[in-house]
Amino acid sequence: MEDTRTARSSIAKLRWLTDEQQRIWRFYVHATTLLEDRVDRQLQRSVNMPHSYYRLLVTLAESPHQRLQMTELAMQAKITRPRLSHAVARLEKNDLVRREEAPSGKRGKYTVLTEQGLEALTRAAPTYATVVQHALFDRLTPQQQEFLGVIMQIVTDGLQTNRAGADLPWLR
Amino acid sequence: MEDTRTARSSIAKLRWLTDEQQRIWRFYVHATTLLEDRVDRQLQRSVNMPHSYYRLLVTLAESPHQRLQMTELAMQAKITRPRLSHAVARLEKNDLVRREEAPSGKRGKYTVLTEQGLEALTRAAPTYATVVQHALFDRLTPQQQEFLGVIMQIVTDGLQTNRAGADLPWLR
Repeated sequence: MEDTRTARSSIAKLRWLTDEQQRIWRFYVHATTLLEDRVDRQLQRSVNMPHSYYRLLVTLAESPHQRLQMTELAMQAKITRPRLSHAVARLEKNDLVRREEAPSGKRGKYTVLTEQGLEALTRAAPTYATVVQHALFDRLTPQQQEFLGVIMQIVTDGLQTNRAGADLPWLR
Repeated sequence: MEDTRTARSSIAKLRWLTDEQQRIWRFYVHATTLLEDRVDRQLQRSVNMPHSYYRLLVTLAESPHQRLQMTELAMQAKITRPRLSHAVARLEKNDLVRREEAPSGKRGKYTVLTEQGLEALTRAAPTYATVVQHALFDRLTPQQQEFLGVIMQIVTDGLQTNRAGADLPWLR
């Protein structure tokens, strides 16, 4: 019990976030957990795939000729290469993407959105837009929406710095 | 190719988010993905556990007698019961939590934070506070921090409504 008291008082002393920051962080974690769950669940229902897979299809759809190399796709999706490889293998198995050799002289394979992949995207798009609208934007004033964008851009820019040795997911 | 063009024009027509909302949503997804990756990675390094497990230990540490029933723990962590069961089994195997029968007359088992669990929390706490401070709060003005709290509270409250039949993770 002595140890328990000591440990607990250490936690109290090491509180490097203010009470207000802890409150904000808790709401951040709760909101982002709940919103991801909501979006993910809707996509599982409408096209039987998780949000992370759907995002890959969107990224491909918006790329020139609906194709990207793995490094570029990982960077745009902000995920690690092993996680991307796993997702692409699953999407390929379901014929939603295919792999293509790069033209001679270029390195690496391309991942290409298939017709079925585009069809799944199209089928899920209304659900996706509706759930994001209802769960997030409908609840916020225009000013809050604007602030959210500014804050999230600051955090994104800060975390994907180009400085050498940065621990970025897509470099792992 | 005819199908491709048709599908693409359908996506364009079904754009129920404004351009500005799409921009904000993209930054939201990028920022939350990168921040979760950063926090998770630091916790993996310092105490060899993912952020989701760490949050369960924090929740237990802050509960009376460092214990909660599974339903309550799932609700506070905003996750599904199967996901919680899986996490608790892993934490129990590593002696970070233990299961205890409820006192007679009460239903359900308790999950209890162990001394080792508290020790792991204490060991990770400085890293955790530092990474949240650096990755999030240090980059924001006091007003932006305040707005972030307000927005995240609105989203949390909206998504965990008490209305009957609400699709809440911890009820699954």
